[in-house]
Amino acid sequence: MKRDHIPASAVRRLSLYLRQLESFLREDRRTVSSKALGEVLHLTDAQVRKDLAYFGQFGHPGVGYRVDELIVRVRQILGTDKICNACVVGAGHLGTALLAYKGFAKRGFQIVAVFDNSPSKVGREVSELGSVRIEPLSAMKERIRQDSIRLGILTVPEESAQEVAGQMIKAGIGGILNFAPVWLSVPAGYPVMNVDLSTDLEQLSYQMTEMGRGRSDGEQ
Amino acid sequence: MKRDHIPASAVRRLSLYLRQLESFLREDRRTVSSKALGEVLHLTDAQVRKDLAYFGQFGHPGVGYRVDELIVRVRQILGTDKICNACVVGAGHLGTALLAYKGFAKRGFQIVAVFDNSPSKVGREVSELGSVRIEPLSAMKERIRQDSIRLGILTVPEESAQEVAGQMIKAGIGGILNFAPVWLSVPAGYPVMNVDLSTDLEQLSYQMTEMGRGRSDGEQ
Repeated sequence: MKRDHIPASAVRRLSLYLRQLESFLREDRRTVSSKALGEVLHLTDAQVRKDLAYFGQFGHPGVGYRVDELIVRVRQILGTDKICNACVVGAGHLGTALLAYKGFAKRGFQIVAVFDNSPSKVGREVSELGSVRIEPLSAMKERIRQDSIRLGILTVPEESAQEVAGQMIKAGIGGILNFAPVWLSVPAGYPVMNVDLSTDLEQLSYQMTEMGRGRSDGEQ
Repeated sequence: MKRDHIPASAVRRLSLYLRQLESFLREDRRTVSSKALGEVLHLTDAQVRKDLAYFGQFGHPGVGYRVDELIVRVRQILGTDKICNACVVGAGHLGTALLAYKGFAKRGFQIVAVFDNSPSKVGREVSELGSVRIEPLSAMKERIRQDSIRLGILTVPEESAQEVAGQMIKAGIGGILNFAPVWLSVPAGYPVMNVDLSTDLEQLSYQMTEMGRGRSDGEQ
């Protein structure tokens, strides 16, 4: 099947499966059936089989899935089986914070450069990355080429996010993880993933308000 | 209309509208039509009107929406018009990083306490929060009551996330922003919002691989 026709929800569930398979592996579980994998994720076995069938034939008759083998295959499909160089654009609070986040390396993304246009930041050493120094955005294109940087983690303020995203794309970045709470306008099909903590917070706040677990008015 | 019947996607778009309205306000725009608001967000005017109609009557005949008024109303609906005390549970890299993130305060969430069970962390002062010291999880219940803490930001490792979430709920936390890459099992209807950076990264990686913008094999 052409990858174009694979629903985004199935790809999203691949991450769920992977997380669960990794958990099984930690428990030394060798094989798993679609039923057992589905059950723990509150999905039917048919759903699990259908999702995986988009990408190939992974089961073994009478055995089910081999946990270690399926982990390798899912990582290959997601492309997280190889190291990918990444950069952070915007060395503010969140950008600096993310440098300490181990989840990037865990998924194969290695942050090797940090860019920011603020004169007070350029040249400063980034302690989390050894001897890496913050570079101005004008240095981005050359560095991206030199270090084969593929992923850009965008953490500039929302006012400049669109402009900076344009510069990143022009400089050859292959995909953007966008932390700015704006909808980036990018070329059709260009890979962007939005992480919008503000929206998540608002949605959670709404749920809490609805549940009557909401905010205090300072009266109680 | 009962809030139960409002689709989650409409609530999600409230955040989108709010972000755009705030942007209009910064540009000193006083009024906006559903058409203009929809256009910039790639939505139809019918969709905008339908979404807002779930929550009340906000338009003015011949004027459209008053930007400042609609901002106030949407914040009320989302419950972000009031201050809500929050705590971080898990003072690791990500937890500490988030203390520096200004987005929480911007949406009315004020972090007033940090919990962690590691003996090397308990008692340490959290520089971002003034004189706040990291407390053990055993102190959570009392502190939550004393400071009317409503939101819990969960940043412990995935292995302990479920157990700690259970403790948070028992201690009276009204909602959890979960950064651990696990599906938390909580009482029906309990407010949880998952922020799964690992999954976002994998999904982005998949898109990049599909686009042929994927990882280098070190050969190019």
